[in-house]
Amino acid sequence: MIKKKNFPVDKIRRFLEPGPIILISSVYKGERDIMTAGWHMMMSFDPSLVGCFVWDQNHSFSTIRRSKQCVINIPTYDLVDAVIGIGNSHGPTPDKFVKFGLTAVEASKVEAPLIGECFASFESKLIDTSLINKYSLFVFEVVKAHVAASPKYPKTIHYRGDGVFMVSGRSVSYRRRFKRVNL
Amino acid sequence: MIKKKNFPVDKIRRFLEPGPIILISSVYKGERDIMTAGWHMMMSFDPSLVGCFVWDQNHSFSTIRRSKQCVINIPTYDLVDAVIGIGNSHGPTPDKFVKFGLTAVEASKVEAPLIGECFASFESKLIDTSLINKYSLFVFEVVKAHVAASPKYPKTIHYRGDGVFMVSGRSVSYRRRFKRVNL
Repeated sequence: MIKKKNFPVDKIRRFLEPGPIILISSVYKGERDIMTAGWHMMMSFDPSLVGCFVWDQNHSFSTIRRSKQCVINIPTYDLVDAVIGIGNSHGPTPDKFVKFGLTAVEASKVEAPLIGECFASFESKLIDTSLINKYSLFVFEVVKAHVAASPKYPKTIHYRGDGVFMVSGRSVSYRRRFKRVNL
Repeated sequence: MIKKKNFPVDKIRRFLEPGPIILISSVYKGERDIMTAGWHMMMSFDPSLVGCFVWDQNHSFSTIRRSKQCVINIPTYDLVDAVIGIGNSHGPTPDKFVKFGLTAVEASKVEAPLIGECFASFESKLIDTSLINKYSLFVFEVVKAHVAASPKYPKTIHYRGDGVFMVSGRSVSYRRRFKRVNL
């Protein structure tokens, strides 16, 4: 379990824009699910919008669409076994929290549980369903963000396909070189 | 200049899914432009679709919308000066190829030029304009891909905001652990 603090929702690009694999947790009528996803993008700072591709063959597709909520969790490299195992699993049983030793933590603004072992968890509401049929694209508004206090930049994993992950490397600041308006 | 080879368009997730900063080149009526972007996502393998957020204050916004084409180029870490400089520049002049020492290379299926110094360049056609007004979201089909023969996984940069880039780390294969259908 990783202890997390409240984090400003308009600053979550710090974690999502670099493109990590995410674990999306959801619940509908008491049945919870987790899915692994790599196709997502920031769409706005304020409101804090994130677009996620959710494959329609994935059990989470209906759980998220029906509940209109989810939690977007960012796992670190040490959770790679769970990430792969969840990606290999389809259907609601067995319960993925139990099977992969993950802890469901109560959220404050959505019914879907946070994943306790992930370093960041973003409580999200589905605010646009109009792109689901055409593109499997779910547009979420992040309404509350929880992030571990340290390290500032945890080691995330970024999928390349064919079973290969890129592990995040060092972070380098070029802050002085940016025009302030572009930071 | 980096020598590139033809690359299968349905396999470009290898480079885009990890979430690197991209340089989008475009041209309209002889006026060319380049913009830096970090908000993009894979949307389909076949057709090879990529969604990109293009800020409406960016000069490239109109160049891309009018020409309905662009090239999505992936720079490596050694091009960070150009990436930042282009991000700091707004407007069509001075010409960004000239200012940042980049080479415009003729594409084969679009009018927009490839950036010769980038290790990957994806010729793209704008196939859906319906999300531009609401989300600044451009949906492109990649119609031809050019990628450097080596290294297999070049060092890319991934933006975190506040002037900080994450530099891509090592790639690790877990191929044997994946169900084949999920690779």
